[in-house]
Amino acid sequence: MKYYNFPFTAICGQEQMKKALILNIIDPKIGGVLLTGQQGTGKSTAVRSMIDILPEIEVHKGCQFQCNLTDDPSDNWCDFCRDQNPQKLRKPINLVNLPLGATEEMVIGSLDIEKIIREGKRAIQPGLLAKANRGILYVDEINLLPDHLVDILLDVSASRINIIEREGVSLEHPSAFILVGSMNPEEGELRPQISDRLGLEVQIKAPTDPQLRAEISIRVLEFEDQPEKFIQKYSIPQEKLKQQIQSAKKKIAEVIIPEELYAQVAILILKLGLYSQRADITFIRCARAHAAFKQRTEISKEDLWEASNLVFNHRVKRFDESISPEILETYFNEIFNDYK
Amino acid sequence: MKYYNFPFTAICGQEQMKKALILNIIDPKIGGVLLTGQQGTGKSTAVRSMIDILPEIEVHKGCQFQCNLTDDPSDNWCDFCRDQNPQKLRKPINLVNLPLGATEEMVIGSLDIEKIIREGKRAIQPGLLAKANRGILYVDEINLLPDHLVDILLDVSASRINIIEREGVSLEHPSAFILVGSMNPEEGELRPQISDRLGLEVQIKAPTDPQLRAEISIRVLEFEDQPEKFIQKYSIPQEKLKQQIQSAKKKIAEVIIPEELYAQVAILILKLGLYSQRADITFIRCARAHAAFKQRTEISKEDLWEASNLVFNHRVKRFDESISPEILETYFNEIFNDYK
Amino acid sequence: MKYYNFPFTAICGQEQMKKALILNIIDPKIGGVLLTGQQGTGKSTAVRSMIDILPEIEVHKGCQFQCNLTDDPSDNWCDFCRDQNPQKLRKPINLVNLPLGATEEMVIGSLDIEKIIREGKRAIQPGLLAKANRGILYVDEINLLPDHLVDILLDVSASRINIIEREGVSLEHPSAFILVGSMNPEEGELRPQISDRLGLEVQIKAPTDPQLRAEISIRVLEFEDQPEKFIQKYSIPQEKLKQQIQSAKKKIAEVIIPEELYAQVAILILKLGLYSQRADITFIRCARAHAAFKQRTEISKEDLWEASNLVFNHRVKRFDESISPEILETYFNEIFNDYK
Amino acid sequence: MKYYNFPFTAICGQEQMKKALILNIIDPKIGGVLLTGQQGTGKSTAVRSMIDILPEIEVHKGCQFQCNLTDDPSDNWCDFCRDQNPQKLRKPINLVNLPLGATEEMVIGSLDIEKIIREGKRAIQPGLLAKANRGILYVDEINLLPDHLVDILLDVSASRINIIEREGVSLEHPSAFILVGSMNPEEGELRPQISDRLGLEVQIKAPTDPQLRAEISIRVLEFEDQPEKFIQKYSIPQEKLKQQIQSAKKKIAEVIIPEELYAQVAILILKLGLYSQRADITFIRCARAHAAFKQRTEISKEDLWEASNLVFNHRVKRFDESISPEILETYFNEIFNDYK
Amino acid sequence: MKYYNFPFTAICGQEQMKKALILNIIDPKIGGVLLTGQQGTGKSTAVRSMIDILPEIEVHKGCQFQCNLTDDPSDNWCDFCRDQNPQKLRKPINLVNLPLGATEEMVIGSLDIEKIIREGKRAIQPGLLAKANRGILYVDEINLLPDHLVDILLDVSASRINIIEREGVSLEHPSAFILVGSMNPEEGELRPQISDRLGLEVQIKAPTDPQLRAEISIRVLEFEDQPEKFIQKYSIPQEKLKQQIQSAKKKIAEVIIPEELYAQVAILILKLGLYSQRADITFIRCARAHAAFKQRTEISKEDLWEASNLVFNHRVKRFDESISPEILETYFNEIFNDYK
Amino acid sequence: MKYYNFPFTAICGQEQMKKALILNIIDPKIGGVLLTGQQGTGKSTAVRSMIDILPEIEVHKGCQFQCNLTDDPSDNWCDFCRDQNPQKLRKPINLVNLPLGATEEMVIGSLDIEKIIREGKRAIQPGLLAKANRGILYVDEINLLPDHLVDILLDVSASRINIIEREGVSLEHPSAFILVGSMNPEEGELRPQISDRLGLEVQIKAPTDPQLRAEISIRVLEFEDQPEKFIQKYSIPQEKLKQQIQSAKKKIAEVIIPEELYAQVAILILKLGLYSQRADITFIRCARAHAAFKQRTEISKEDLWEASNLVFNHRVKRFDESISPEILETYFNEIFNDYK
Repeated sequence: MKYYNFPFTAICGQEQMKKALILNIIDPKIGGVLLTGQQGTGKSTAVRSMIDILPEIEVHKGCQFQCNLTDDPSDNWCDFCRDQNPQKLRKPINLVNLPLGATEEMVIGSLDIEKIIREGKRAIQPGLLAKANRGILYVDEINLLPDHLVDILLDVSASRINIIEREGVSLEHPSAFILVGSMNPEEGELRPQISDRLGLEVQIKAPTDPQLRAEISIRVLEFEDQPEKFIQKYSIPQEKLKQQIQSAKKKIAEVIIPEELYAQVAILILKLGLYSQRADITFIRCARAHAAFKQRTEISKEDLWEASNLVFNHRVKRFDESISPEILETYFNEIFNDYK
Repeated sequence: MKYYNFPFTAICGQEQMKKALILNIIDPKIGGVLLTGQQGTGKSTAVRSMIDILPEIEVHKGCQFQCNLTDDPSDNWCDFCRDQNPQKLRKPINLVNLPLGATEEMVIGSLDIEKIIREGKRAIQPGLLAKANRGILYVDEINLLPDHLVDILLDVSASRINIIEREGVSLEHPSAFILVGSMNPEEGELRPQISDRLGLEVQIKAPTDPQLRAEISIRVLEFEDQPEKFIQKYSIPQEKLKQQIQSAKKKIAEVIIPEELYAQVAILILKLGLYSQRADITFIRCARAHAAFKQRTEISKEDLWEASNLVFNHRVKRFDESISPEILETYFNEIFNDYK
Repeated sequence: MKYYNFPFTAICGQEQMKKALILNIIDPKIGGVLLTGQQGTGKSTAVRSMIDILPEIEVHKGCQFQCNLTDDPSDNWCDFCRDQNPQKLRKPINLVNLPLGATEEMVIGSLDIEKIIREGKRAIQPGLLAKANRGILYVDEINLLPDHLVDILLDVSASRINIIEREGVSLEHPSAFILVGSMNPEEGELRPQISDRLGLEVQIKAPTDPQLRAEISIRVLEFEDQPEKFIQKYSIPQEKLKQQIQSAKKKIAEVIIPEELYAQVAILILKLGLYSQRADITFIRCARAHAAFKQRTEISKEDLWEASNLVFNHRVKRFDESISPEILETYFNEIFNDYK
Repeated sequence: MKYYNFPFTAICGQEQMKKALILNIIDPKIGGVLLTGQQGTGKSTAVRSMIDILPEIEVHKGCQFQCNLTDDPSDNWCDFCRDQNPQKLRKPINLVNLPLGATEEMVIGSLDIEKIIREGKRAIQPGLLAKANRGILYVDEINLLPDHLVDILLDVSASRINIIEREGVSLEHPSAFILVGSMNPEEGELRPQISDRLGLEVQIKAPTDPQLRAEISIRVLEFEDQPEKFIQKYSIPQEKLKQQIQSAKKKIAEVIIPEELYAQVAILILKLGLYSQRADITFIRCARAHAAFKQRTEISKEDLWEASNLVFNHRVKRFDESISPEILETYFNEIFNDYK
Repeated sequence: MKYYNFPFTAICGQEQMKKALILNIIDPKIGGVLLTGQQGTGKSTAVRSMIDILPEIEVHKGCQFQCNLTDDPSDNWCDFCRDQNPQKLRKPINLVNLPLGATEEMVIGSLDIEKIIREGKRAIQPGLLAKANRGILYVDEINLLPDHLVDILLDVSASRINIIEREGVSLEHPSAFILVGSMNPEEGELRPQISDRLGLEVQIKAPTDPQLRAEISIRVLEFEDQPEKFIQKYSIPQEKLKQQIQSAKKKIAEVIIPEELYAQVAILILKLGLYSQRADITFIRCARAHAAFKQRTEISKEDLWEASNLVFNHRVKRFDESISPEILETYFNEIFNDYK
Repeated sequence: MKYYNFPFTAICGQEQMKKALILNIIDPKIGGVLLTGQQGTGKSTAVRSMIDILPEIEVHKGCQFQCNLTDDPSDNWCDFCRDQNPQKLRKPINLVNLPLGATEEMVIGSLDIEKIIREGKRAIQPGLLAKANRGILYVDEINLLPDHLVDILLDVSASRINIIEREGVSLEHPSAFILVGSMNPEEGELRPQISDRLGLEVQIKAPTDPQLRAEISIRVLEFEDQPEKFIQKYSIPQEKLKQQIQSAKKKIAEVIIPEELYAQVAILILKLGLYSQRADITFIRCARAHAAFKQRTEISKEDLWEASNLVFNHRVKRFDESISPEILETYFNEIFNDYK
């Protein structure tokens, strides 16, 4: 079915949220985003808006796992890709929605009963984790996700492999995805294990400027009443952003990380009272992706500052350190003074 | 089966409730109504009474999803509509009752076992969410709805899509409905997520005027004892109201929203301590629908005042702001003074 | 199987309970009875005793839903009645016992597996709610009924329709019944929603007069030791009561309700601190049925007084108003002074 | 399989327990016994010992419901008895053990899958409630019985009918049994509803006389080491007791109950602060059965005194009245002074 | 599969535990042992070590229930034994391990699906309770056994019969076993009902003598590294102990119990504040078995003293009596002074 | 599928963790390792890194249980190995990951439905416990493992046997594995029973030296961006370590344990307030394996010191003794002074 999504570039304000989503598309190893904020601040709309700016990947036509064409066929392709020699295809990466009420079978995969009946042999029907491979897995109200689904998410996002075991049939497939979660902190905490798997956090606030709100109301009413016409209006900036992301993905390998940056990041992290090595690595990835987005080959102070704003938020809070934004800024300036 | 419903136009008093229901029929994007009040105040009767004044839609005969004839067949029609080229049909939109004890299969849809046995292929039996598409989904005692059904409602009412996954068969269909809930606040709170999905709230009180109660008793006894005769008595006002709604639905696109109204609404909302962008949009939709109902092409002060009474009730209360009706009125007059 | 029931007319004392049961048979729209009292006061015995004085209805032979012969065949008859043109039959209305441990399938209905196997098509096996249509549904210890069954009862008793959905087969049938519940308040409260669905309440007390208890002991021992002989002894009063009820059912339409009574009832109800419109309507129905039982065509003070004793008991108590019987009597006399 | 039971007549002491069990066999309408006491006081042994003194009943060979040959075949016999005209048979009534871990299917009955496969038609496999008809149902640790089984027991022991509903097949059969329960009050209370269904209560205490304990030890060791030899030793008293019970069952109809006794019993019961009519009736039945056991045709003071000791124990305690044994004795003497 | 067990006779110290296990093998009616102590004190190792000293029983080859060849074939043998006239066989009694995670089907028995498919008739696959008949059932961490398994154990160990009911097929078989449980009291209490079923209790303490610990370490390392060689070293004492147990089993009937001992035991038990008759009987059985183990035909003071140490431990503690070992010894000497 | 693992020898620091893993590979009877520390300290990465240094074992090609070729075929080989006489094969031992959301069927094994359908006979599909035989079973976040899986782990790791019972089919197979668990103590305690089964514990801390963190960041980014190239860089040290482990496994039997060491270890353990014999034995095994790793044939003071650091950590803590590292060192020096 075809549904209309609000154009990503028509979202008013919310710059950090948009940047966090874009940086993850550029370097999926950043590890996802957590969007926090009250109901009605447009978190879910924004995520759904991503669909139309997603980059394309090359897959085999008919492959249910988005097998990577550059992988070794005998080791890493699915039976279908290996045996059928199918046609190549470029298509946008999938944005998969994981509903709170999903069953384990929907998520992991299930027995393909039809094939059993028709062909007399057991087969697996892939689930949402297959569909999300090389794409984005979105969980709205991730803090309300039932524990048994959280456990599945944690296992798979750590190992990047999904194992389907159903009545003696078993299948392994890669399931590497960007995890995007949204939540309203008033409705319950997020389990710390899953919070640590999410690379960035953005706290979203409702706009308090009447003119800005008016503009949003106008755009939303316009979109809801006449979606096709509204989407048409934004077709050029949409295409431009898509190109910019595509280009950044290619450029990222060229960005130079100065030798001394690694230790500088470690010093900042230790000063913030953090310990997880993931923070160091995510920070560097985030800064590098931002440089690539800005089409730079060298990491600038701006890139580092953006990373500071996206990486530390939930990590510092998590362990109750009283690091205020001002202190972060002071540390930042002390350590990264020489960058421009 | 045929059942008699109490005529909507025979309901004594309860003007706000009737208006809230009517405005939602005129513009379904207002987002539903929550009717609160004690047992025995006629909430459920009123909702069931809507059936006979519901506007008609055009569908294909035999289509189980009320596919929209103006949608793109290849993208948005069901298999049946696309493949069978069925006859067109006008019929009233559905008013679907979601019972508290419903199973997930009843709501979402289930495997069509008969077809599997008869034709040897897997098929889906649509559920209540298919039936409610383009219509009204009514949940009596919505605060007592089990959590797993609430989760389904939230998912579907946000995405307007229902995904049926049963044993490897999967089907997506549109499920855009007006959600109408009733509840007695003494019997438990409504989960905030679902409350925020409901556009309007009306608090219903039992009448305390003996003459009014007498009139109600007379009408109810008359209806219960001789339903056909009673219904006959109200056939003219019923038809008239139906026409008026139909006409308002068409006129709504012609109603002019003054440029400055968007920001004025934002100011009011911020003064009330609210933040959700949905409040702004619902307010404007509500006022516009009211203007159309009154056959105006310009939004009047009366339209704005009705919106104020229907949109803010549950939203203000929800976050414990001490905004009294008097304060609301003061703000209203300050901001909308120039409307007439 | 045939079981002996203690004759209704052999019950010593307990006049209010007997009257409440009889009035409901005369006008089922009164809405049932709740019998409260400790274990061992004969509540269940009394309900089972009703069987032999129940009036007869006309049905089709073999119909499982007691379809109403006066309904429109194409709209309201079941497939069997519509297609088979079966023989007419007079039989007593059913008194259906709903056991606490009943499964949902027993109550709602289930798939008819035999038919599926034998005839290869899906069919429904009706449940207790089909059997209770146009009859009485009795729930002993109704306060201990599991929540999922209470939810079913509430849904069906409000809509008077039972919807059976089992594996893609669905069937709607009317299920209009008089709900009779018994409970010992010491063993737990009744959920308010279900209490409000029950028209009348009678509080039953164990007799404290030794001679009366002796008479009961004698009768019960006699019945238990030689049931057939004992039943024979009461055959004439049983038949007489049955006739009287039958006649009252016919006469009820002729009872005149004075125009001013509606408002008078509303005044009484408001003075008692009640609000539910159902109280007004039940009061009038109860008084009218009592007049018909007494073979009057005009409502007398006695009819109103009986209604006062049966309708307000649980409603007043429910909301903790301190209305003593004396206050009720004072109000009653003020308002209904002109009746005789 | 054959198992050895400790001979009933070899039980040392515990006269009240033995009497309570015997009286129930003589008049099953007394309503069962509750045996309370700590672990290791021989309650279960005693109940199992009853097997060898149980009276015989006449049944049809092969009937699974112990249909009563004196019942009306068309109304009350099972299909097998009605259709097959089977051979008559005398056999001891069944003593059925209801294990705490029983499933509902074991208790109520289940689908007879074999018959379905073999004969292609649905049939019912009767459960423990069929086996217990006209016999004894024993529940060890009745206070630990899961609630869903308690509910079944309550339903069936009240209606004396068991309804089996399994996948659309349904079967009703009589299930009239003497309920015998044992429990250790230290391990949890008995639900009041089930306590009220049990006619008599006996509190069992471990003997504190070393000689009596020695005698018990000697008998038990002897029985455990050489059961056949030990049973042989008691064959004559066993047979004698069996005859005495059989004879009492026949004589009970001849026992004269003085007209004034009914009110005298009521007076005693009211003085004890009780209210349940069941207490009156059980008292009279108990006294009458005791008279028959003692081969009297008139009720004596001894019979009444035994009834006092067996009927009131749990009933008085249940409602926290401080009726001491001395007070009971005083009341008893005042009221029944004229009996001898 | 073949596994190596640490030789029973190679266990250092822990004399009471070894004695308790041996006495139960000699007289299984003693009723089992409870081994209590912290983790790592060798409880489970010791129980598994029993395997190689277990006495042999005579069974039919292929019988799954270890039917007793001396039982009456028509009453007590299984179908297989009765119908097939199989070969006789001597084999060690089974030591069956009941894992905490066992399913009810594993324990009780299940439907034999293969037979149903192959031969078209329902059959039962026996469970662990069949395997344990005439043998030992061992439950490690018995205090953590789930309640539904405890209930099964209690039912079967009381009745010595296991009833398998699965989908209308039913089978009874004897299941008489010695129950051996181990537990660490720090990890939770044992339910009193199951504690009372266990004849003896031994409290196990870790050795605090370094030389003893060294010896244990040496033996365990030796056994773990080269099991076959280690087992060979102990083959003679193992065989000797096995003979001694076998001989004691035969001699037990010859041990004379002095007439006055029964009352003396009762006096001791009453002085200890106990009441359960089982304590008396277990004491006598335990003393008698010890005499037989020591190849005496008369009970000596030593036999009685061993019984005192094994029987009262958990029974006294259970009811919070403050009976110290010194008090027990004083009583013991007063009562059993004349024994030698 | 093929996945890249971070090279074990490329892990910076964390010497104790690496040593604990290596010693367990050398002597699997040490009993596993528990790695504790906060999220993000590389515990899981390290365990997965072991894969490439695991020693090889000899198995039969196609055997699902890694049967030991040196075992007695008739007693201990699986049907496949015994019947098919398959080819021999050397392969690395398995490192099996047990996901938190695993089902019991996945872990224990399940019915092989395909074989049933295809060949008409019941067969077992082995589970993770078969795959882990003679290898390593890794449980990430072992403290969050559901209780029913913990119970299975405890049963199997104690008995080294897995019993699969599914619908009447049963299969026993050896399941001897090294249990490696990781956990973050902030997220919940580990059940004491499972903690006692784990031979060693290492507490892992995040590095606080910026240069070390920088080095880790550099290596991880390098590995993540270009895994194949990075792995190549470490191929020589990886191969060297693998050889060293292989050689130590062979040498271990030659290491001499001085006679007096056993009692010295016992003295240390008693001084530490421990009691479990397992501590003594694990200590000696650990020291011996360390000596073999260092290619010594005599146990040195260094070997004993390493054992002190790995064996006592969780055991002392478990019972709240306040044994500081300094006290441990003092005791150590007193007792093991003569070793060099």
